[in-house]
Amino acid sequence: MRRDAGRSTLTGIAAEAGVSVSTVSKVLNGRSDVAPGTRDRITKLLRGRGYQIVPGMRFGIVDLLIGSLHGPWAEELIRGAVDAAREVGHSIVVTTVSHGAGFTDWLERAARRGTDGLLSVAYLPAPAERQRLAAAHIPLIVVDPPTEPGGASQTGDIRSVGTTNWQGGLTATRHLAELGHRRIGAIGGPERFWSANARLDGYRTALMRSGLPVDEDLVVRGEFVVPAGRDLTRVLLDRPDPPTAIVAANDNQAFGALQALGERGLRVPGDVSLVGFDDAIAAWATPPLTTIRQPLGAMTAAAFRMLRMDADGVAAQPQHVELATELVVRESTAPPRAL
Amino acid sequence: MRRDAGRSTLTGIAAEAGVSVSTVSKVLNGRSDVAPGTRDRITKLLRGRGYQIVPGMRFGIVDLLIGSLHGPWAEELIRGAVDAAREVGHSIVVTTVSHGAGFTDWLERAARRGTDGLLSVAYLPAPAERQRLAAAHIPLIVVDPPTEPGGASQTGDIRSVGTTNWQGGLTATRHLAELGHRRIGAIGGPERFWSANARLDGYRTALMRSGLPVDEDLVVRGEFVVPAGRDLTRVLLDRPDPPTAIVAANDNQAFGALQALGERGLRVPGDVSLVGFDDAIAAWATPPLTTIRQPLGAMTAAAFRMLRMDADGVAAQPQHVELATELVVRESTAPPRAL
Repeated sequence: MRRDAGRSTLTGIAAEAGVSVSTVSKVLNGRSDVAPGTRDRITKLLRGRGYQIVPGMRFGIVDLLIGSLHGPWAEELIRGAVDAAREVGHSIVVTTVSHGAGFTDWLERAARRGTDGLLSVAYLPAPAERQRLAAAHIPLIVVDPPTEPGGASQTGDIRSVGTTNWQGGLTATRHLAELGHRRIGAIGGPERFWSANARLDGYRTALMRSGLPVDEDLVVRGEFVVPAGRDLTRVLLDRPDPPTAIVAANDNQAFGALQALGERGLRVPGDVSLVGFDDAIAAWATPPLTTIRQPLGAMTAAAFRMLRMDADGVAAQPQHVELATELVVRESTAPPRAL
Repeated sequence: MRRDAGRSTLTGIAAEAGVSVSTVSKVLNGRSDVAPGTRDRITKLLRGRGYQIVPGMRFGIVDLLIGSLHGPWAEELIRGAVDAAREVGHSIVVTTVSHGAGFTDWLERAARRGTDGLLSVAYLPAPAERQRLAAAHIPLIVVDPPTEPGGASQTGDIRSVGTTNWQGGLTATRHLAELGHRRIGAIGGPERFWSANARLDGYRTALMRSGLPVDEDLVVRGEFVVPAGRDLTRVLLDRPDPPTAIVAANDNQAFGALQALGERGLRVPGDVSLVGFDDAIAAWATPPLTTIRQPLGAMTAAAFRMLRMDADGVAAQPQHVELATELVVRESTAPPRAL
């Protein structure tokens, strides 16, 4: 049923839906600042009149939310997203949140100005927050998910991009075993991080595959920061039979390990070998750190492209993608002294 | 002269200016994607009919352009801008550019989506680029200006936020002189950076004030990166009468210096004292670096607030602001061995 020509279609739809023309226009343009019920009512009316509502990627803006910016790795994460966005003429808005604070503020701002989607790094929005994202039609990709993808603490419908943490832990430890080390200690990250647990599991797998005993006395755990690496290395060095090599859960911890080893007058790799994880500034250490390279920039770029697939209507998208880690051998690893 | 009531004012202005109503609406709403000549013509007509055109800060988006993201300092710069923007409900779009490339792409995207202003870090847009910014009504604040504020290479109308580079160089060197060092070497940054020159001038001032000779054999210069710090330290150590202390132009160079000193079996600070500049990750070094703290986050926050003053119509704004550096004493400095 057509309205008479003297009255515009949008005005007619606005009257029929009991909203302003501006609200109709917002829905037509894919803006997110319209209440879901209203949006659905207007969408139905628009479609009935042959209007196409183009999903997603209308604003040219994608949000990057970072759970913590404690360290140089943030830079590469940001650059990866910025570069991928630039390729298609999009812009990246960067926001930092800490748990519980900031998300609501961010969501209000993003809904007001419009956004094509959210890349959330090392921050898993809570179930209530995810509902609000869905209501605002803001698609979500989690980068470096803090919990197990598809695991019990997730609803199963969260898409994410991570790295091969288990493989990285395995590769780091195997490198030390192949150099001849028999007593390999591990500094693990916090138990609340799935990535930290997977890296330690990789460590244990490498020991078992190499025929070495898994001695939990050589496993210590703490936060992903320099002081934790320093303090936990002291603990390992105080063991009756201390390790001749240490795998750290990230480079920050490895920088702390270098401080603790320096205090005791121990040389790296002469007395103790050391492997980090991340490779943002590992080459800056004295000696330059052997480490497991995590492709941080490629991870946010991949997440950005997952959002684009949404917009392009690509079906059968993966729920979770893991990009490969890589062993980078520098100067902090060598055969043990005894050999 | 009023139009008749049956025809809306904006429609009349559009007809008179020979443009669409949508273009008139863009100008009224402060959008930047209108050609300057057209904008001026429409603005005049709008003002003639009593319309107020609100300047700036209409989009809730401010752009942060970063000239290089080589190092952990980028993280603090981004966080400072993000936090300041959050306070007033604004969002920060982050983009990276290298010289010559990327600026035009960025400007086209920003003009299309709208922006309230540009904070440009360590990147001074060229005169032609500044003209395009002005034409698009995008205000500019340069953070960490690469050339001398108000100097010959600038037009004099660029507003900027920096840090007290000269004072920082002076404070670092005076700290070493007060510890008793008489042979203090300097690793300078590249001559094309005003900040690098100011830091070296501060070094020379401190030597003169301490009654020490300024020996240009003890001054070496290179890029702000780890390998340059390593190579230039080797050069200083090869001098017939090598320095007992070194001031580096940034922490990256100081990390390189630690590598070169380690190679030679020299202890820090036992054999050689070392001071850095920046304090993003200086505490991570072995030993933790004494350094000059540059308030990077406060600098981008201050630049953001300068844009806000624009929008609020604050008169008599400063052209250039310098935020204070601070000496942070850690474990890489001590009296020389001879004392």
